[in-house]
Amino acid sequence: MKKKIRLNKILELLKQKKLKKDLFINNITNLKDAKKGDLSLCINFKYIEELKKTKASACITSKKFLKYVPTNCIPLISKEPEIDYINVLQIFYKDFIFDNISIEVLKKNQIKKKFKNIFFGQNFICDKNTKIDKNCKIGHNVVINKNCSIGKDVIIGSNVILSNCIIESNVVIGDGSIIGKKGFGFKFLNGKLMRIPHIGKVVIKQNSEIGSLCNIDRGSLSDTVIGEYTFLDNQIQIAHNVKIGNYCMIAAQVGISGSSIIGDNVSIGGQSGISGHLKIGNNVKIGGKSGVVKNIEDNKTVMGYPAIDFREFIKKNLTK
Amino acid sequence: MKKKIRLNKILELLKQKKLKKDLFINNITNLKDAKKGDLSLCINFKYIEELKKTKASACITSKKFLKYVPTNCIPLISKEPEIDYINVLQIFYKDFIFDNISIEVLKKNQIKKKFKNIFFGQNFICDKNTKIDKNCKIGHNVVINKNCSIGKDVIIGSNVILSNCIIESNVVIGDGSIIGKKGFGFKFLNGKLMRIPHIGKVVIKQNSEIGSLCNIDRGSLSDTVIGEYTFLDNQIQIAHNVKIGNYCMIAAQVGISGSSIIGDNVSIGGQSGISGHLKIGNNVKIGGKSGVVKNIEDNKTVMGYPAIDFREFIKKNLTK
Amino acid sequence: MKKKIRLNKILELLKQKKLKKDLFINNITNLKDAKKGDLSLCINFKYIEELKKTKASACITSKKFLKYVPTNCIPLISKEPEIDYINVLQIFYKDFIFDNISIEVLKKNQIKKKFKNIFFGQNFICDKNTKIDKNCKIGHNVVINKNCSIGKDVIIGSNVILSNCIIESNVVIGDGSIIGKKGFGFKFLNGKLMRIPHIGKVVIKQNSEIGSLCNIDRGSLSDTVIGEYTFLDNQIQIAHNVKIGNYCMIAAQVGISGSSIIGDNVSIGGQSGISGHLKIGNNVKIGGKSGVVKNIEDNKTVMGYPAIDFREFIKKNLTK
Repeated sequence: MKKKIRLNKILELLKQKKLKKDLFINNITNLKDAKKGDLSLCINFKYIEELKKTKASACITSKKFLKYVPTNCIPLISKEPEIDYINVLQIFYKDFIFDNISIEVLKKNQIKKKFKNIFFGQNFICDKNTKIDKNCKIGHNVVINKNCSIGKDVIIGSNVILSNCIIESNVVIGDGSIIGKKGFGFKFLNGKLMRIPHIGKVVIKQNSEIGSLCNIDRGSLSDTVIGEYTFLDNQIQIAHNVKIGNYCMIAAQVGISGSSIIGDNVSIGGQSGISGHLKIGNNVKIGGKSGVVKNIEDNKTVMGYPAIDFREFIKKNLTK
Repeated sequence: MKKKIRLNKILELLKQKKLKKDLFINNITNLKDAKKGDLSLCINFKYIEELKKTKASACITSKKFLKYVPTNCIPLISKEPEIDYINVLQIFYKDFIFDNISIEVLKKNQIKKKFKNIFFGQNFICDKNTKIDKNCKIGHNVVINKNCSIGKDVIIGSNVILSNCIIESNVVIGDGSIIGKKGFGFKFLNGKLMRIPHIGKVVIKQNSEIGSLCNIDRGSLSDTVIGEYTFLDNQIQIAHNVKIGNYCMIAAQVGISGSSIIGDNVSIGGQSGISGHLKIGNNVKIGGKSGVVKNIEDNKTVMGYPAIDFREFIKKNLTK
Repeated sequence: MKKKIRLNKILELLKQKKLKKDLFINNITNLKDAKKGDLSLCINFKYIEELKKTKASACITSKKFLKYVPTNCIPLISKEPEIDYINVLQIFYKDFIFDNISIEVLKKNQIKKKFKNIFFGQNFICDKNTKIDKNCKIGHNVVINKNCSIGKDVIIGSNVILSNCIIESNVVIGDGSIIGKKGFGFKFLNGKLMRIPHIGKVVIKQNSEIGSLCNIDRGSLSDTVIGEYTFLDNQIQIAHNVKIGNYCMIAAQVGISGSSIIGDNVSIGGQSGISGHLKIGNNVKIGGKSGVVKNIEDNKTVMGYPAIDFREFIKKNLTK
């Protein structure tokens, strides 16, 4: 999956001048998480401070950001930095552009031999590198694709499809849920469709429960995370990079858009939607069918579309 | 599944003093439906009248309700009646805490032999105690778990999962729908997660039609019911204990929260949501994307979020 | 599926007087698309102009429309034209009343032999007349029912169910999506349930992508169409006869009701709903969770429930 690549090979691909002293690029990450040997991207002034402090060894960016690139980082100046970046991502993570199903699945007798103290139903289709801890119960027609690991005492319903995920112990996953597929990420740049590889995972922490017919998409660069003791009802859509805290309760048909962060002990009423890139504080309560379009501070109760303070919502709508 | 238990064994578990004259508890139900030999619960003044008249032989409750307990009923006074109640439910209905898949499924040749005048597709996975009447058509990859009975002339799509349900004659169920799984029921009591066993069923009455990718959860104590000649479109969520009348039409992506009761001849527009514990009258029309938060009388037409009288909605929103 | 029927046989069925000079009816279509030999219906003054110009050889209608029926078209005057029409549809298209699964599926070795340069997963269930072009990748537990054809380089996720559809080249379909089942179409006429056969298909044009757990229902008379380079996220409901243009982006949990037409380059935010029989222009942007209840002109941006001009929505809701 991941492989070291010479920076000069990347420069060649981007049709840029090669370096005299070549180096290996280990990985591609965001500016903040990048380590020595990593390649990153900066195309937004919002991330200037992170650019200044980045430990990345190289960064694709445009001319105007050049002066903020620290000395440990080789700037790769590009006229189309986003296109170049996606192109490089696609080289590193070719397998993550589409959701390829597992080709190397275990045979029936291999499953029986490998998973001795696990109960599994009929027609269990399981990638050969899957790790499953003891006492799990796995339903009928379950598909486990590549890059999955499952903790102990986990219950997985029938027709569930898992890929690229870490399911911790004591988690319950309802029938027909689909976890770890790629997010809704692509760009039309200069009229050309660019598919963004999604290289993050889904992490479902211990003691959580996912309902039936839910989608939890894997992250693009970082992971999508569901915290401990967090309960999701049915038909919920969790987009890529979303992080949900512990002890949350999310009712049916809720949708959370990409990269939003939900605190601990948050309850969200049925059919509510939360826009992308928002921050919802701890102990927040969101009434049913709300449309949240901005950040919410800790301990607030909101409702409405767009969501406003709950008492205001009541005053405005339910009194005369 | 259900079994008689000595009341003294329950008292022992609840760390209460045993009775001199023991008796058998047959079942656990609500105050209203309880018969001689049943155990019930009262923790809410709303149910005082039902408590006074209950036929239950014993009732877990708190001190303040003691004076309303009738003489035929042994009061089990508890400081934490809800916790004690869930604990007792969990003893009686251990199998209903999680959605365990059927382990005892029929083999291919057993299916052929048992269901002679039924058409079934490939990879049909069926619990050995399932009853299916004549002339049914069952799609591919269908899973029928425990406690299901299916009337005649029923059509079941592919990838459908059934558990704990009674499907009457002439019903149609669309591809990928999941019927009879446990509802979204749990409590955090004194910081401890308590999972409530869901011991009701789903009943789908004759001539009704369920769309594709729908969820109909089974009831907690009572059943979830879909009436006769009632049509559900796709991606609909029906929570536990909901009762829907006859001749209703429910458009796609509607969600109905737990324990709400819908009358006859009700039409509900797409993406509408109905809060829990509401009563919607007969011949009610609910416009698309409405959010219903209070009871609606017979023959009303409503729309909006929150839903209001339809003419008022039009006046407020669509005229200038 | 389709078969010629003598008009006198239809008249006999409708208990009408037979013609002296009988003719063959080839097909049933709307007034506009009807050719010589076809039968059509007119029950609505909205379609008078189309009636006047129709090429249909016969038309079921009521007395008041008689004078508009052109000379090439035999009027079949009925007191209950809609009931008669559905009855005739049901004779022609008996197989399209319910979603019958494919009975004649290929055996494992037949699949291997027929689809040589296609990758397919475990438990692939495929109707024997299916056409699949080269380089396709098909997931696990996929069901392909009758009347499907699939272009080259198509990727189909696991648990997908296809029926009555044309999938063009380079299309991606996410896990668990259900494409081509019948729409939500029935009538209660004079207290009798009439199921309307859905005889259209779903056409997904090249380079488009459908997310996971989506429904796209086939058309009633015409097709349901998804244009080129159009991207749908997860849990989307597209009803019968909807036509979506090219280069559209539709976020998760959106629902589009029957017969609506969406232009090119339209973006629709998550959880939005669009009522039936609407026309949404080109380059329209619809904000998240909007409820669209009327036509939208080209280049407009709208939001709200009901959806209004975006600046007006902001002024009304997000400023003080």
